[in-house]
Amino acid sequence: KMLGRVLWTVLFVGALQSLAKASQGHISVVLLGATGDLAKKYLWQGLFQLYMDQVSSGHSFTFHGAALTALEPGQRLMFDVLKKLSCPPDEAPNRCAVLKDQFLKLSQYHQLRTAENYTALNREIEALLRQEGLKEAGRIFYFSVPPFAYTEIARHINSSCRPPPGAWLRVVLEKPFGHDLQSAQQLAAELTGFFREEEMYRVDHYLGKQAVAHILPFRDQNQRFLDPIWNRHHVERVEIVLKETVDAKGRTSFYEQYGVIRDVLQNHLTEALMFLIMELPANVSRAEEVLQHKLQSFQSLWGLEKNSAVLGQYQAYASQVQEELQQAQDYVSTTPTFAGVLIRSDSLRWEGVPFLLTSGKALDERVGYARVLFKNRAYCTQSETLRDAGHSQCKAKQIIFYFGHGALNTPAVLVSRNLFRPIMPKDSWKEAVAQSDLHVFGQPLSDYYVYSPVKERDAYSVLISNIYHGRKDFFITTENLLASWGFWTPLLDSISHQPLRLYPGGVENQHLLDFEMVSGGLAFTLEEPEELLNPPRQMPTDYKAIQSKYRQSPLVSAWSEDLISQLASHMEEAAVRSVARSGQFHLALSGGSSPAILFQRLARHHYAFPWKHTHIWLVDERCVPLTDSESNFFSLHSHLLQSVRVPYFNIHPMPVHLNRRLCVEEDRGTELYAKDIVALVANASFDLVLLGVGTDGHTASLFPRSENGLEGAPTVVLTESPVKPHQRMSLSLPLINKARQVFVLVLGKGKHDITTLLSRVGHEPRKWPISGVSPGSGQLVWYVDYEALLG
Amino acid sequence: KMLGRVLWTVLFVGALQSLAKASQGHISVVLLGATGDLAKKYLWQGLFQLYMDQVSSGHSFTFHGAALTALEPGQRLMFDVLKKLSCPPDEAPNRCAVLKDQFLKLSQYHQLRTAENYTALNREIEALLRQEGLKEAGRIFYFSVPPFAYTEIARHINSSCRPPPGAWLRVVLEKPFGHDLQSAQQLAAELTGFFREEEMYRVDHYLGKQAVAHILPFRDQNQRFLDPIWNRHHVERVEIVLKETVDAKGRTSFYEQYGVIRDVLQNHLTEALMFLIMELPANVSRAEEVLQHKLQSFQSLWGLEKNSAVLGQYQAYASQVQEELQQAQDYVSTTPTFAGVLIRSDSLRWEGVPFLLTSGKALDERVGYARVLFKNRAYCTQSETLRDAGHSQCKAKQIIFYFGHGALNTPAVLVSRNLFRPIMPKDSWKEAVAQSDLHVFGQPLSDYYVYSPVKERDAYSVLISNIYHGRKDFFITTENLLASWGFWTPLLDSISHQPLRLYPGGVENQHLLDFEMVSGGLAFTLEEPEELLNPPRQMPTDYKAIQSKYRQSPLVSAWSEDLISQLASHMEEAAVRSVARSGQFHLALSGGSSPAILFQRLARHHYAFPWKHTHIWLVDERCVPLTDSESNFFSLHSHLLQSVRVPYFNIHPMPVHLNRRLCVEEDRGTELYAKDIVALVANASFDLVLLGVGTDGHTASLFPRSENGLEGAPTVVLTESPVKPHQRMSLSLPLINKARQVFVLVLGKGKHDITTLLSRVGHEPRKWPISGVSPGSGQLVWYVDYEALLG
Repeated sequence: KMLGRVLWTVLFVGALQSLAKASQGHISVVLLGATGDLAKKYLWQGLFQLYMDQVSSGHSFTFHGAALTALEPGQRLMFDVLKKLSCPPDEAPNRCAVLKDQFLKLSQYHQLRTAENYTALNREIEALLRQEGLKEAGRIFYFSVPPFAYTEIARHINSSCRPPPGAWLRVVLEKPFGHDLQSAQQLAAELTGFFREEEMYRVDHYLGKQAVAHILPFRDQNQRFLDPIWNRHHVERVEIVLKETVDAKGRTSFYEQYGVIRDVLQNHLTEALMFLIMELPANVSRAEEVLQHKLQSFQSLWGLEKNSAVLGQYQAYASQVQEELQQAQDYVSTTPTFAGVLIRSDSLRWEGVPFLLTSGKALDERVGYARVLFKNRAYCTQSETLRDAGHSQCKAKQIIFYFGHGALNTPAVLVSRNLFRPIMPKDSWKEAVAQSDLHVFGQPLSDYYVYSPVKERDAYSVLISNIYHGRKDFFITTENLLASWGFWTPLLDSISHQPLRLYPGGVENQHLLDFEMVSGGLAFTLEEPEELLNPPRQMPTDYKAIQSKYRQSPLVSAWSEDLISQLASHMEEAAVRSVARSGQFHLALSGGSSPAILFQRLARHHYAFPWKHTHIWLVDERCVPLTDSESNFFSLHSHLLQSVRVPYFNIHPMPVHLNRRLCVEEDRGTELYAKDIVALVANASFDLVLLGVGTDGHTASLFPRSENGLEGAPTVVLTESPVKPHQRMSLSLPLINKARQVFVLVLGKGKHDITTLLSRVGHEPRKWPISGVSPGSGQLVWYVDYEALLG
Repeated sequence: KMLGRVLWTVLFVGALQSLAKASQGHISVVLLGATGDLAKKYLWQGLFQLYMDQVSSGHSFTFHGAALTALEPGQRLMFDVLKKLSCPPDEAPNRCAVLKDQFLKLSQYHQLRTAENYTALNREIEALLRQEGLKEAGRIFYFSVPPFAYTEIARHINSSCRPPPGAWLRVVLEKPFGHDLQSAQQLAAELTGFFREEEMYRVDHYLGKQAVAHILPFRDQNQRFLDPIWNRHHVERVEIVLKETVDAKGRTSFYEQYGVIRDVLQNHLTEALMFLIMELPANVSRAEEVLQHKLQSFQSLWGLEKNSAVLGQYQAYASQVQEELQQAQDYVSTTPTFAGVLIRSDSLRWEGVPFLLTSGKALDERVGYARVLFKNRAYCTQSETLRDAGHSQCKAKQIIFYFGHGALNTPAVLVSRNLFRPIMPKDSWKEAVAQSDLHVFGQPLSDYYVYSPVKERDAYSVLISNIYHGRKDFFITTENLLASWGFWTPLLDSISHQPLRLYPGGVENQHLLDFEMVSGGLAFTLEEPEELLNPPRQMPTDYKAIQSKYRQSPLVSAWSEDLISQLASHMEEAAVRSVARSGQFHLALSGGSSPAILFQRLARHHYAFPWKHTHIWLVDERCVPLTDSESNFFSLHSHLLQSVRVPYFNIHPMPVHLNRRLCVEEDRGTELYAKDIVALVANASFDLVLLGVGTDGHTASLFPRSENGLEGAPTVVLTESPVKPHQRMSLSLPLINKARQVFVLVLGKGKHDITTLLSRVGHEPRKWPISGVSPGSGQLVWYVDYEALLG
């Protein structure tokens, strides 16, 4: 039956086109999940569009719908869908009707459940090609199935359905691709067992949206206008927004596992952001170049923290979940349906420019856009009433990639007229006539150059065409996917127990979801108007109350992020006090990974820290050059010093590298450092010493049973570490104990045992050097996170 | 006659008030220039207002008008003015009529021309007081005369008219107070010979404008709202503006000498700026505290440069000057009638915030204001159409001190409703009912809290009242005046031959005078639309053409500011090239005052300089600690390094201070530095060496007939300077000559002789070390300014 159909088609097509063209070869498209929602709504239509566009390309096609349903009912379901395929307005109705008829004849349903089903499919394809004398060009397998089915299907395709050498295989995968870095890695590893990277086409349908797809070409074609202004000196902010009016009703079984960040921000909005901020590749359509630039952009992003996001949930969500998932009345969902996230980059180009990503369900309007707002650097002397609206430099300057819906109700590119008249490809974008009564982004539409697509194409049509053309730059590679999950996962982890702001939905939300940038993060503008939805994770307040002292000294305890933020604030307070008292602040810092987070926090959140009057000393140092990445100073420099303005003279690295050699006793580095301390620090008493604790109870570079530094004079010593690099320089315990304040920071489960042990032992510095920390006339405070304290 | 009047008044007043009050004493007010314009327009009215306000204060008054005119006609002129004095709307007409009658009786005209006239005046005052049995409280001499008359009058007052001990003297001076720093210093020095600082009241009538006078009280009373936001993190810009519609017609004899910067910016707008940006004094009405904070603010301002300003002149000005000053038809005026100036501060509070001062004549409207615009840090999720206009955080946030005129036509204080409801003193400011159809500063008036004065008072009334009350915080002290001239004079000098943009005047100006911030300065937004008014100062292009080489090497020559800016650009280009080639840029810098200007320029204008990959070396150093202000490194640090982000490891000060002692040979500092160079700089060949030249022909710290460094190995040497500090460390000539590029910067008239000499001599490094600079395989470029080149 099938053979006849193909034969007929080939003959028919042959009548329209030369045989030479037909010799391009045959393409078999297999749509898995052929009767599902996505297939019904977009994919069959996209395949039909592909056929209409490519029928004269010289390729011949067959379309194989597949599902788990048995042949008869499956066939019926599928052809019900196919019969409803529509003709695009830009297609001649006659031609379309003919082509639709052909398309139906070239389409066939298969039940694909068992290994045998796959083998049979493969046999059918091979037989057809042989009998028709067609060369095989390639096979497309489109996975429109839930992700749990991926591995199984992939295995079958790989073992039974690969085309012969010389023809290509393209498998198309739909999100979700995991729900965090680990699960994404696992899924990626499994797929990599079956397919080569170049065979996989991961769909993010936003990359098929015309306005998103045009971001890079726009930047490329308008390079001479954008080059001078596409940077932190001119860009005030970037907003990427997807607002929906619908809620999650009917889809909560999916949504409850994912939430808005996984559903929209991690993929769609992040991809749009990358197109905007990546360094422009020399060739914007070369997938490998685009990928490399994207990955570099990911590298430049600051890590997200809990306070990088504001989260909300529409009020009806809880009851929808209870109903659809048959949960108890007291079931509390912590899944956000609204999120605003502040992203920053430390690239030279974007440092300091806020990228705001926002998405939510049950909002007041449906709209999506990426908006670049430029700084106003002008003063307009002429009074407002006399300004030429479209051209005054005092009007807002912006470039907007309008994804669709909203007031414009079409994809569009908008460029403020006081910026430049953009270069747009005339075959695909046309200048729109402005409806002057429409206001968008604070200005009448007539203030913009407005372009909309010549042919409006749905994202899936665009993507299916790009699969056919092998345009991998429209798809998400494994590296890209993992970079994105690597970026988002820390935030997802840190907010998993965050309270959510409840919002009524729609226009009722009013200003409830407005948010603003405060001290490096985001916060809702209005105070919490009602009870929190979820109480924060049960805090061990009882334990804390008992343990407000640790080893007879004050204890501050919290989850690590909060703890670091408290410690940083206390350090700033100490610095301000000290500068008020003596004009200076002498701060001695330890190396290690916990301080690194602290240093970043100080650099990024504490603008009022009196760095100009702060002297930075090292508590200890490894005997490596200062530029070695193992050096404590190097880490201090990269996490803190390069971002704040401490005068050069106030920075005191330990002299481990003298006369171009490391920690040689006769170079007298320890003496030199001790003399510097005596010369600059009143009474050799540091204002604040920050220490850590090792699992063996060491602190600074003072190790158990060390020969130097545990007692004796307040000085600087060379010591031996049990781990590499062995040679170290360190302040001695007696010198540390002269300090006005000593803060000890202990983080993580790995420190639980030593924390417990230390809570029980007395002053035994030879066994546990940290136990010897006891400032003579100063104050000792412990900063221990819950994981270290409670295990 | 006069005695009778006073007697009558005292009796009359006595009828109204207790004698105890009257015992406060008598005040004599002498208005010099009593028949002049200012006196007619404002001063007599102000004195009448003072009398009305203070008639019940217990002080008695007499008012002495004085001028050069003889008694009879002077009297007539003066009483013509007095008869026209008006009653303020807030005064009961009956009371006012009675008081006006009294005021006239208490007023008398004097001819003050000769020394004898002053002695006579003094005798009359003394006689009156004696005869009436009045205690003398004080004397006010108001100088409403041209400044050339100041010294003479001051001398007479000082020698003949001082009140007896126990009574005060207050002399009130009207601007202009000089036309640059030097003339202001001279005038101040002369006046200081006659009056003590506390006796002088220099008027800037803007300080009497109600909205200006309320800036500090507003900041004080609203401290809790402003504290968190009154800084660079929240303020986007500050604009201080005085636009006039009138032109200078009829006043060109004055205006042609001053121009808009001296007339408006140096005084009125600068004072308003200071009130906005000074650190808030603990007591805002204590003059000494306010002064100290103002002076600190002046200290924090960046020096103005030519490109800090945009300048214009209305087209009719030239012909007005030609006519009024009887100038030839080809007379060209370089006096600006419009200026926009960008001011920046490097205080912690304001770093990076642009302060824009603008004023001009013949503009489209008359208005004055100081406007603080805050950054928008919010994202508003609700669509624009649904936002609550007055309260949305996405609306502009601003605070405006509205001096008067313009759309509001009243002094006012405006605070955006989305900021806070300000605290305003109810007795002097009332909340205004918003005319909702009015738009100001981009928003409907209803978006603001609007306050206007309960009683609108003209500036001179306010000031005369403050003179009476001894409120010196409303006047300009000598220190304040000189600080302001010190700030403005470099700009005035550098623009004295700048081309001006011609503008037609009024609404015809359109966008011609719009300007914007570009690369650290200002520029008009529109390209020059027509011929320049003034050709730039005749450039010695002929000379330059002949001398495009100097000592066989390329020569760049210009006026010093242009030269520095060209040099800085060439350095950036060299750096970018070098980083592209090798990933690094090794730059060796000299000390001295000329490089300091260059360093500042690099720090402030060259954002794209690849500092992260630049290594900074010293060409030479004085044997002093690095923190000594004599140290070359110290100067380099304060002018450049503290403002840019060079990694700590890339900064290479010369090791002149080892083992806590200076340049001791056995510490081997020179060897150490040489080894560092060899280790880090490929082939010990610096990418760029920047040198200067001494009047004796020295360069680096290589002096004529030096024993070290002029020949031999490419190394680092200790040398002796003929001037203190004698001991120096320096790169040797052979090491310098290994560089890829050497730039020599020579600035100023003082270098003219050596420049001329060097153009004639050959390679004689023992006589003139600079003549030995000749990079083996590198390039040498001379940067010599016109003053050094041409004398």
